[in-house]
Amino acid sequence: MTIRWTLPIAAALCLPAPALADTHIDNIDGISIDRDGTVDRFTGMVVDEDGRISELLDFGDRPTRDIDYYVDGEGGVVVPGFVDGHLHVMGIGLGTLVLDLSTTRSLNEALSRIEAYAAAYPDRPWIIGRGWNQEVWGMDRFPTAAELDAVVPDRPVWLERVDGHAGWGNTLALRAGNVTAQSTDPTGGRIERLPGSRAPAGVLVDAAMPMVAGQIPPPLPEDRDLALHNAQQLLLSHGITAVADMGSTIEDWMTFRRAGDAGRLQMRIMSYADSVDTMLLIGGPAPTQWLYEDRLRLNGVKLYLDGALGSRGALLNEDYEDDHGNRGLPLLSGTQLRNLISRAALDNFQVAVHAIGDAANRDALSAIEQLSEDYTGDRRWRIEHAQIVDPADLPRFGQSGIIASMQPVHQTSDMFMAEARLGSDRLGGAYAWRSILDAGGSLAFGTDAPVEPVSALAGLAVSISRENADGVPEGGWRPQEVITREQALAAYTAGAAYAGFAEGRFGRLAEGERADFVMLSADPLVSDAQAIRNIQVLQTWIAGRRVYDLDTPQN
Amino acid sequence: MTIRWTLPIAAALCLPAPALADTHIDNIDGISIDRDGTVDRFTGMVVDEDGRISELLDFGDRPTRDIDYYVDGEGGVVVPGFVDGHLHVMGIGLGTLVLDLSTTRSLNEALSRIEAYAAAYPDRPWIIGRGWNQEVWGMDRFPTAAELDAVVPDRPVWLERVDGHAGWGNTLALRAGNVTAQSTDPTGGRIERLPGSRAPAGVLVDAAMPMVAGQIPPPLPEDRDLALHNAQQLLLSHGITAVADMGSTIEDWMTFRRAGDAGRLQMRIMSYADSVDTMLLIGGPAPTQWLYEDRLRLNGVKLYLDGALGSRGALLNEDYEDDHGNRGLPLLSGTQLRNLISRAALDNFQVAVHAIGDAANRDALSAIEQLSEDYTGDRRWRIEHAQIVDPADLPRFGQSGIIASMQPVHQTSDMFMAEARLGSDRLGGAYAWRSILDAGGSLAFGTDAPVEPVSALAGLAVSISRENADGVPEGGWRPQEVITREQALAAYTAGAAYAGFAEGRFGRLAEGERADFVMLSADPLVSDAQAIRNIQVLQTWIAGRRVYDLDTPQN
Repeated sequence: MTIRWTLPIAAALCLPAPALADTHIDNIDGISIDRDGTVDRFTGMVVDEDGRISELLDFGDRPTRDIDYYVDGEGGVVVPGFVDGHLHVMGIGLGTLVLDLSTTRSLNEALSRIEAYAAAYPDRPWIIGRGWNQEVWGMDRFPTAAELDAVVPDRPVWLERVDGHAGWGNTLALRAGNVTAQSTDPTGGRIERLPGSRAPAGVLVDAAMPMVAGQIPPPLPEDRDLALHNAQQLLLSHGITAVADMGSTIEDWMTFRRAGDAGRLQMRIMSYADSVDTMLLIGGPAPTQWLYEDRLRLNGVKLYLDGALGSRGALLNEDYEDDHGNRGLPLLSGTQLRNLISRAALDNFQVAVHAIGDAANRDALSAIEQLSEDYTGDRRWRIEHAQIVDPADLPRFGQSGIIASMQPVHQTSDMFMAEARLGSDRLGGAYAWRSILDAGGSLAFGTDAPVEPVSALAGLAVSISRENADGVPEGGWRPQEVITREQALAAYTAGAAYAGFAEGRFGRLAEGERADFVMLSADPLVSDAQAIRNIQVLQTWIAGRRVYDLDTPQN
Repeated sequence: MTIRWTLPIAAALCLPAPALADTHIDNIDGISIDRDGTVDRFTGMVVDEDGRISELLDFGDRPTRDIDYYVDGEGGVVVPGFVDGHLHVMGIGLGTLVLDLSTTRSLNEALSRIEAYAAAYPDRPWIIGRGWNQEVWGMDRFPTAAELDAVVPDRPVWLERVDGHAGWGNTLALRAGNVTAQSTDPTGGRIERLPGSRAPAGVLVDAAMPMVAGQIPPPLPEDRDLALHNAQQLLLSHGITAVADMGSTIEDWMTFRRAGDAGRLQMRIMSYADSVDTMLLIGGPAPTQWLYEDRLRLNGVKLYLDGALGSRGALLNEDYEDDHGNRGLPLLSGTQLRNLISRAALDNFQVAVHAIGDAANRDALSAIEQLSEDYTGDRRWRIEHAQIVDPADLPRFGQSGIIASMQPVHQTSDMFMAEARLGSDRLGGAYAWRSILDAGGSLAFGTDAPVEPVSALAGLAVSISRENADGVPEGGWRPQEVITREQALAAYTAGAAYAGFAEGRFGRLAEGERADFVMLSADPLVSDAQAIRNIQVLQTWIAGRRVYDLDTPQN
């Protein structure tokens, strides 16, 4: 994409960037998509000085207003910037500052990486990492503290599981958290024990994690700012121009604001606070304004109803198939859930309920249906993940206009584990995108990064195939739940924007919306799943300014 | 002051307020003052579209640029908006929402007010108030829980003393705080006991206060927003256009930001966080930007070194004259103080140390002098209150370029109490404005509202007279410490702005600074103390917009 200045060079050089005036972006293979999957194609657009689209142009159309800048798109495919409906901005960013184990394929590989990392950072008082997955390592048990002690005996080590629902510590970490044979499991959490003993084995699940994690020195403020910078660069490089940040802490929010105040916030963040208290602290009597030209808003709160499948924390209607007697860990009672939803809805905050297991989803649906009678109007109740739903409950997504905020890649990451956890008979409503759409529900797609890698395109590929990156299983896992390319792209753009009350601001390439777009190496609406995975993000633009270019080295 | 539109009426009506373009404010008796007391007089000014002064005009001068609006000042006296160097914005605002006892002259009057208030608000679960002062009531003891029980037996009552350093509860409040005969005094605090008994008497001092205060339901977010609105209206009505907010909590800061985001923040707030943790949470790796066009900035942190004289919490070099064996309550050790100052200074946050007693002032001076060797550059170390200073320590204010942030009205409020607490021989450095200036120190004046009433003019009157509103004592208390009208006005404008790193932004009426000014009913530089007290604030302007008018009813 070539930018040609139509102003005299001297004048142009005085301007920090394009799109401070009317810009004509011409000669593109432009695609926009409505929430229902309706496609609009165009060959050019005009962006005004506020970074909003003032006109879409078809071949041969000329802009109706005077143009200050002209950009030749050289025929490139342009789609709306991806809107990630569920991720953790600071988790992504802080993850760039700690040891990443997400690519390790075995326990031994992980241990040697941990040993090398500890040697490389002798001054760090704790060794912190994340991303391990014993399932990927082919283990039928969690790793142990003793295994960590063998490579790092001198400092505490704390490593979060890929899904964030379990942590693995060495002996010094367990000692720092005062986790002993005498410790009882906290409500909603579990201390893994050595076989035939009460001695802690090394892994803490869900609500037990803070016993150790609470002892870790918090990140320095400058680390937070760097983390946000890194997260933003990573997201922009994947064409993600807007995100729903799920579970923002007050520290996260202050970091977002520092970036916004300094003009460093480029992407758009729809924030859901980690608690009602944080929500009220930030928003006060109502959701915040849209700040920084539609770049930041506190929409509401995320509530956690259960844990995850991997750590058997997801709340199920029946016992875990591979752990009889366990139905998961409820994090809120029905009354607590209703009280928290009510407190948020009372002041028009949006509510996003994390529900993974079929029992959690049923509880969430029931609570929302009940409270919808009191809290009427356009509420856009969200259920986050909605991974395992009893088929009998699927129609309820449509009946109450609930938004299913789902992460397609979870389906391929979790499919075999889900079969182990539930057995195949209980998966009729698992990752049931098509059924939810057919029932009249709304989809918002996201990555859940850093739980899954930052890649909207991988999500699109899974959405239409239900095959993983290796093409497994051939023909797709429960392929009746695939959706169309258009439905998938809509859920990753306009659908995710709608889910955050952002329609009309961003999510589509349409008049009046911000000119947030991505130039891709191929058209995802005419590519097969494998080809979609191979599409490159060439450039990313926000509000009519180029913020990422594949050919320009990033800092 | 009449505003005459030079634009055609139709066009003018489309604009929300003046000063969206160049405005000529003409025919005024304009006064500005530098930090050193140098006076500049002028008859007009031109304000640009950003609300900054682009030109000061003398009689007969014509603006050098085209003018969009013309304002006839009708010869009114115009001074810079007052900058209050030390107050508590949310304390003022929340104080408007609770029972105000600051005008009561006797215990009986207070009790009948409390009884009537409780009857007027039968639904409030707690009766909250502030502003009592047993000294004003002519009592030589604190009031008791039993006295409160007699008028409010059915609900907890909690009433803060005027200086915020003691609280008075009824029996239900003491019970809510689990304050019993078995309770021991917390470090830095004291439970007043009934004579000859360990039974709590009703008043809790300093660090004991949270035992009860911590049980009070926090204000609702909408109460906070209303409180800020009320505080702002009150401050603007007194001509105070900028303030240093001392001890901002994170809730306070979020309230300021909500107002800023919504365009409701008119006055300027220089914020000093209530702790290093809050400071880092807000500022991250550095003080914030100036936000909202110079209306909000986190400058640094306020640290508390001692309590107040009234509650005998101020830290003295020798015993209290009226309480032998007591030298006050140290709130930080020397090491703690140095560590906190270092943590703030490390990242260029400004440090304001609350020090009232002569021992606290000595400790603060010593810590600052010592740390100044490591933390060089323009630090503007502040000592808040600096009420009782050993005369031997006064020169140290000048030697280290320390800003003495003082509140003139405290001198008249506290003078007789100070004599009782210390005896007259130990008051050689009490409220020693002149000595501090003579030593080369800098003064920033404020009200400490809500501890004292919101009135800069009362402070000016005291500054030049050291007499209270009744003219007592005639000729002034320790009158050698009076300062000139010019020095006093400077300390309330440019001096207080400098103390917050705001010089060049506001504090003077000078080219390039914001057009924040007050129209007064008389010239304070040619009035005596009593006449200054009687001056009326006719109008208050911020950034070239009128934000208060005596003749216009406020909401």
